[in-house]
Amino acid sequence: MVPRYARPAMTAIWEPEARYRIWFEIEAHAAVKMGELGVVPESAGKALWDWWATNPTIDVAAIDAIEAVTKHDVIAFLDWVAQQVGPEARFMHQGMTSSDVLDTTLNVQLVRASNILLEDLDALLAAIKRRAEEHKYTPTIGRSHGIHAEPVTFGLKLAQAYAEFARCRKRLVAAREEIATCAISGAVGTFANVDPSVEEYVAEKLGLEVEPISTQVIPRDRHAMFFAVLAVIASSIERLAIEVRHLQRTEVLEAEEYFSPGQKGSSAMPHKRNPVLTENLTGQARMIRSYALPAMENVALWHERDISHSSVERFIGPDATITLDFALARLTGVIDKLLIYPERMQKNLDRMGGLVHSQRVLLALTQAGLSRDESYRLVQRNAMKVWESDGQLSLLELLKADPEVSAALPAATIEEKFNLDYHFKEVDRIFERVFAAA
Amino acid sequence: MVPRYARPAMTAIWEPEARYRIWFEIEAHAAVKMGELGVVPESAGKALWDWWATNPTIDVAAIDAIEAVTKHDVIAFLDWVAQQVGPEARFMHQGMTSSDVLDTTLNVQLVRASNILLEDLDALLAAIKRRAEEHKYTPTIGRSHGIHAEPVTFGLKLAQAYAEFARCRKRLVAAREEIATCAISGAVGTFANVDPSVEEYVAEKLGLEVEPISTQVIPRDRHAMFFAVLAVIASSIERLAIEVRHLQRTEVLEAEEYFSPGQKGSSAMPHKRNPVLTENLTGQARMIRSYALPAMENVALWHERDISHSSVERFIGPDATITLDFALARLTGVIDKLLIYPERMQKNLDRMGGLVHSQRVLLALTQAGLSRDESYRLVQRNAMKVWESDGQLSLLELLKADPEVSAALPAATIEEKFNLDYHFKEVDRIFERVFAAA
Amino acid sequence: MVPRYARPAMTAIWEPEARYRIWFEIEAHAAVKMGELGVVPESAGKALWDWWATNPTIDVAAIDAIEAVTKHDVIAFLDWVAQQVGPEARFMHQGMTSSDVLDTTLNVQLVRASNILLEDLDALLAAIKRRAEEHKYTPTIGRSHGIHAEPVTFGLKLAQAYAEFARCRKRLVAAREEIATCAISGAVGTFANVDPSVEEYVAEKLGLEVEPISTQVIPRDRHAMFFAVLAVIASSIERLAIEVRHLQRTEVLEAEEYFSPGQKGSSAMPHKRNPVLTENLTGQARMIRSYALPAMENVALWHERDISHSSVERFIGPDATITLDFALARLTGVIDKLLIYPERMQKNLDRMGGLVHSQRVLLALTQAGLSRDESYRLVQRNAMKVWESDGQLSLLELLKADPEVSAALPAATIEEKFNLDYHFKEVDRIFERVFAAA
Amino acid sequence: MVPRYARPAMTAIWEPEARYRIWFEIEAHAAVKMGELGVVPESAGKALWDWWATNPTIDVAAIDAIEAVTKHDVIAFLDWVAQQVGPEARFMHQGMTSSDVLDTTLNVQLVRASNILLEDLDALLAAIKRRAEEHKYTPTIGRSHGIHAEPVTFGLKLAQAYAEFARCRKRLVAAREEIATCAISGAVGTFANVDPSVEEYVAEKLGLEVEPISTQVIPRDRHAMFFAVLAVIASSIERLAIEVRHLQRTEVLEAEEYFSPGQKGSSAMPHKRNPVLTENLTGQARMIRSYALPAMENVALWHERDISHSSVERFIGPDATITLDFALARLTGVIDKLLIYPERMQKNLDRMGGLVHSQRVLLALTQAGLSRDESYRLVQRNAMKVWESDGQLSLLELLKADPEVSAALPAATIEEKFNLDYHFKEVDRIFERVFAAA
Repeated sequence: MVPRYARPAMTAIWEPEARYRIWFEIEAHAAVKMGELGVVPESAGKALWDWWATNPTIDVAAIDAIEAVTKHDVIAFLDWVAQQVGPEARFMHQGMTSSDVLDTTLNVQLVRASNILLEDLDALLAAIKRRAEEHKYTPTIGRSHGIHAEPVTFGLKLAQAYAEFARCRKRLVAAREEIATCAISGAVGTFANVDPSVEEYVAEKLGLEVEPISTQVIPRDRHAMFFAVLAVIASSIERLAIEVRHLQRTEVLEAEEYFSPGQKGSSAMPHKRNPVLTENLTGQARMIRSYALPAMENVALWHERDISHSSVERFIGPDATITLDFALARLTGVIDKLLIYPERMQKNLDRMGGLVHSQRVLLALTQAGLSRDESYRLVQRNAMKVWESDGQLSLLELLKADPEVSAALPAATIEEKFNLDYHFKEVDRIFERVFAAA
Repeated sequence: MVPRYARPAMTAIWEPEARYRIWFEIEAHAAVKMGELGVVPESAGKALWDWWATNPTIDVAAIDAIEAVTKHDVIAFLDWVAQQVGPEARFMHQGMTSSDVLDTTLNVQLVRASNILLEDLDALLAAIKRRAEEHKYTPTIGRSHGIHAEPVTFGLKLAQAYAEFARCRKRLVAAREEIATCAISGAVGTFANVDPSVEEYVAEKLGLEVEPISTQVIPRDRHAMFFAVLAVIASSIERLAIEVRHLQRTEVLEAEEYFSPGQKGSSAMPHKRNPVLTENLTGQARMIRSYALPAMENVALWHERDISHSSVERFIGPDATITLDFALARLTGVIDKLLIYPERMQKNLDRMGGLVHSQRVLLALTQAGLSRDESYRLVQRNAMKVWESDGQLSLLELLKADPEVSAALPAATIEEKFNLDYHFKEVDRIFERVFAAA
Repeated sequence: MVPRYARPAMTAIWEPEARYRIWFEIEAHAAVKMGELGVVPESAGKALWDWWATNPTIDVAAIDAIEAVTKHDVIAFLDWVAQQVGPEARFMHQGMTSSDVLDTTLNVQLVRASNILLEDLDALLAAIKRRAEEHKYTPTIGRSHGIHAEPVTFGLKLAQAYAEFARCRKRLVAAREEIATCAISGAVGTFANVDPSVEEYVAEKLGLEVEPISTQVIPRDRHAMFFAVLAVIASSIERLAIEVRHLQRTEVLEAEEYFSPGQKGSSAMPHKRNPVLTENLTGQARMIRSYALPAMENVALWHERDISHSSVERFIGPDATITLDFALARLTGVIDKLLIYPERMQKNLDRMGGLVHSQRVLLALTQAGLSRDESYRLVQRNAMKVWESDGQLSLLELLKADPEVSAALPAATIEEKFNLDYHFKEVDRIFERVFAAA
Repeated sequence: MVPRYARPAMTAIWEPEARYRIWFEIEAHAAVKMGELGVVPESAGKALWDWWATNPTIDVAAIDAIEAVTKHDVIAFLDWVAQQVGPEARFMHQGMTSSDVLDTTLNVQLVRASNILLEDLDALLAAIKRRAEEHKYTPTIGRSHGIHAEPVTFGLKLAQAYAEFARCRKRLVAAREEIATCAISGAVGTFANVDPSVEEYVAEKLGLEVEPISTQVIPRDRHAMFFAVLAVIASSIERLAIEVRHLQRTEVLEAEEYFSPGQKGSSAMPHKRNPVLTENLTGQARMIRSYALPAMENVALWHERDISHSSVERFIGPDATITLDFALARLTGVIDKLLIYPERMQKNLDRMGGLVHSQRVLLALTQAGLSRDESYRLVQRNAMKVWESDGQLSLLELLKADPEVSAALPAATIEEKFNLDYHFKEVDRIFERVFAAA
């Protein structure tokens, strides 16, 4: 976790105190249910919750000190709670195993992290939608291979991003479901010393589903899937970030990250206004993506479990969620305040001498009866002249002057093919497709 | 693609001819709809399908020869079809762009691949279930950290695998949905020269959904998600493969891959019977997992598209699906024919001198009024003796002879704690959880 | 392996026949040495080499047929050779283990692949150097963050690429050394049944080093390092490919991939000239990079060996080397024939109204006694006006007209700061640094 | 960075204060050289070093506060230093760019980190060597595929680890060389405003090499290679960790991690002694390996530079080096204190009824004139009986009783083939190969 890429609400989920609080809740809920079942005295659960009601401070340092001796974190925690609550606490953890607590806790943390990430995605979607509506009909050149292709609108660019992040949101909802499970099944998952109803009770209290079968651990394919989804979301962040970076290039300059007064772009070059936020997002995306790999390598635990997944999760649990939260918020800010330059878009659109309309002429020629091959040849020979003139020549004029072309198409027909609005007639329909459900 | 790890049905999906056949269908369906719309003569679509009805051979070499000149695969294909069908063919591909064909085709291939993979998963699930039922109550030791923990049944091991692959199946269904889309939206996705109803028509004919917004390409976050799911499935394959490899270790030998007559385990050591199939699967899993990464790097295409994803997909499209198909089938064979040795499992269970029952005694002591810490100390001091004797001493006998233990618990109570069946009382309930829905 | 991304010489290394030929040489060399040692009759090695001198065809299908029964590739091969050579062949493979043959063979293949890759790198370096010399003093704008920074020369861009690939070459030489080892150490590497001098003899004959300690297998950290180096080379390919893609963007267009007559850029848009080769390279780089991961996961084989590495290497051995060979050759072609447009570079350089010279003025102001902060403020306020004019205003004119600036610096001094050659005074020195050693 | 996997010396390298100290040194060295050149007053460098000689505290919070306004870290730092040193400080950073400072600083940090890692490797190598010598002739079974193969010694196992980490050390020395460079080349690397001799001077003072050509940034292929080497080292750590985990399995138990008094293996099962340190190392290895990927993705910066690498390096710079330092130290401790059980090794060796000697008999039969195939068949039919008896039958007795075997080999000859020492006759030679150079 890099502090400058961390926001408080997400970070808090991963702090020791938050973890210990969840541990306590699991143990105390379990004790209550075991009391109901007569496995432990009913007074045990009551004592625990009574103490909890005093809103006690969790003394992380004291627990750490015990762990330094026992070298076992859950036992250290139970010892510390026992010191606070008194003899009733000895009924805690009856028939349970550490992983019952640890794995269920991790899942609670990931669910909470998911909830924040879903809010982040909602904010991002709202920002994208707002700017998309704003520029629904702002003409700009569509580029394939970095080369001018045909006109689109800036709103369409953003509508595509919206659809992509809406898919990301749907995937994250599914990913949250993947890891929203609770296991209280004992040493190897047989419920030998703990009744399955305890698991059901704790699951319900924590808003989780029961893990159908656990083997001391909750199976890690769930977590692999979870982190893979975060990795895909990061990849979509990278895509939009790179779009902004491209648009801000000096020669393109159709949009820019907001540049605040007092900000210095370069210590050496006072004129620089760099897309540093989106470059930064590009790097963060690489990191979040990379965390999916160790998560997948965690799946193949030995037999009923080994603990190799644990050190991995100490890194990627916080790092992936905290960084993704930060990245989504940063991207939302970028889109929200993006400086968008329609005049420049128009200027860029015009700079190719009308080449972007070549396909329409090609189609018109075939419809006028020429073979596709012949039509292609006629358009290309004029297009190449325009291309080589760096947009100084006009495709429209050249085509009208080409005897073979004009033999096939009257001048007015050729001119009609250079109408920009022709390209935007389905924008409304596409917007409906994208935003209707939202 | 490695031929020895390839099965014909999956391989066929990726052969040039299969691809060209899908190309044709997309173009011909589109031509029909364009005919309906009056954009091209209705005779065009008819001519195409009439020719198709003759069940023509696709001359891959001839198409390749054209591509060698045009350096453009779709144009080469259209030229070749035009040679076969005649002048009506010039109306093909009107207003469309190559990616309309290529991307929709890739998705058709991935859907078909998914269908095979779903069948593979069904076969695997059936094999696992059959063996799980067979060994529902076969006792075996549960191991955490590779160390004997408490008893489980072999059926439970397989039930866990079943639940895991059932989740994989669900994920694959979702992944198939991710990539089951069709785009016929023209050069930059604006439908400038092709009516959206063409897209709708083709999508329906091919059993796909319409891509709500495309930008020449179908967005690659869909494919990233698809290959990430394959990677997670591969990780689950690795887990079960490693379980078998562990069980077949000389010192464990609770199960073995089927060893056919005539098979030689080692050129040098005639006695060797090696878990080569599951080792092989472990390596294949590494490969399938690795393909998720370039798939994710493919997401951030430049602007409306660049073609960097294409070379990646030429590798991972076939490699990931063909290898996963093979791996699932191989794993199914391994499970189906797995040699399972219940006597050896019992022997291993017994070799620890009863240590596996230590927890139940611990619980009994706390319930008899001792503190958790005290109980732990009493059990551990006897357990350590057994441990150090390498299972020659009996925990039961030591505990009965320990004055502090026997002061707290009568001998009969201690003996009762060593009953194996105690651990299996919830097996039925767990099986119900896992297999009920199936 | 994707056939369209494969060249014959590299592909041949990985064909079954090539592998069998190396197998034979290892076995026959070993037999000769064992004959010298008196372990086997001297006639054995002679018989093998006599047969080999007849230049026999390797009947891959026949060997495959035997393997179908024995399920063991090396035994199948030995059986087939025995059929050809006669009874003397039974002395082959004495005290050896399959991995002695397989691992040494893989290393021979990787060494041969490295040799081709080194030639590829030499060709690439030569092409880059030629174009770098050609454009040593061709002015172009240097860009950081995609934003115009200060002038560089196109030769410097290429010199940087040269230095990077020279490092890659050095790394590949080291990587080749990593895997240029031979192991003939028997079933678990103890030389129990084969004298170490056999290993030494075979190593020398094959131009390899002796593996100091093997454990049936040659340790896979060597191969992990090898494929990691290929992955880094791929990343450098990606960098140069992306540079070309950027330069070919419509708005930049300072360079272009060679566009051959007859080539069609787009089926829909006849005017398109797309950087498809470098986009293609970008995707290939992603693949080659991804192969490093399973290679690293291969390191942790169990005990003296397991065979999980083998299936991985059947993929990445050919795929990584064949694709990298192709990519290097393609990149060499791109650089060799790259269309370079100095006029356009100059035009782009000029389009910022002189902003690229801002730093020199900043320095002059501080040298004239202003504080750094004050100097920065003065330059920035003029630079921002030029920036907002989209290069229509001239920074030089604004600065000369700024009373605070002109109070500090005479006009002639300001003008001198806008001299382009000032930036190129060290080009020769840098070229010497880069190319001197070459 | 996970605090529990971090050691102070390595962590200190990455703290803000350490970074600022390196920044200062670079700037101050540069100022001295510029003074010599007459570019700035000689008093500037003197003032800086005079202040430095007062051993000033670096006020990280104050610098952060300035950065909050300027949004530029280097400028913030320069401003703060200027506040401390006074007007002479305005000559700092003349003609330099932020990256000159940042990139050179990162490399200084990575060199320092490498130095610690090399010490770590030396300590690990020493521990492995000591234990290898100690168990040079301790017999143990060699295993391939997890199956008993032929005898080795425990010392050989460790000698293999020694050779592997000696290779890792060599790679790390090369990796350190890769990133031990200094760049002071100005805004786009042309030395426009800074003389190359400044770079040479600073490089020498910092013990670095001059970067032959930089483009504002030091090229990231160097760092990609560096982190790839760390990833390979991590993979070797994983290999040895997994060896220990295997050896500690209940059924194997040939070695164990040291288990300190007071340590609790399991909250639920008092008898557990788990290989948690090596499991932990396995997970850490996954993380360190994963960091190589974003490092490789960092290579393809746009044009002369973009800053996407920076956020990646804020993670992996500290995380990879701190975790690897911790992991190497932990592994050293594990090996140093490893509990090794020779009696158990012997017991495991004996449990297969002599099967491990099968190959020697096979060879003896072929040397006695039988065909390889026939010999294999004779040995295998007896070996299979022993195998199926789970080591209760003796291969030696069966072979002596087999009429076809005894017809070919006298009993004494067969018996001689079961001598364990036969396998260890080359141990000394192997040790010499491995440790001679050390």
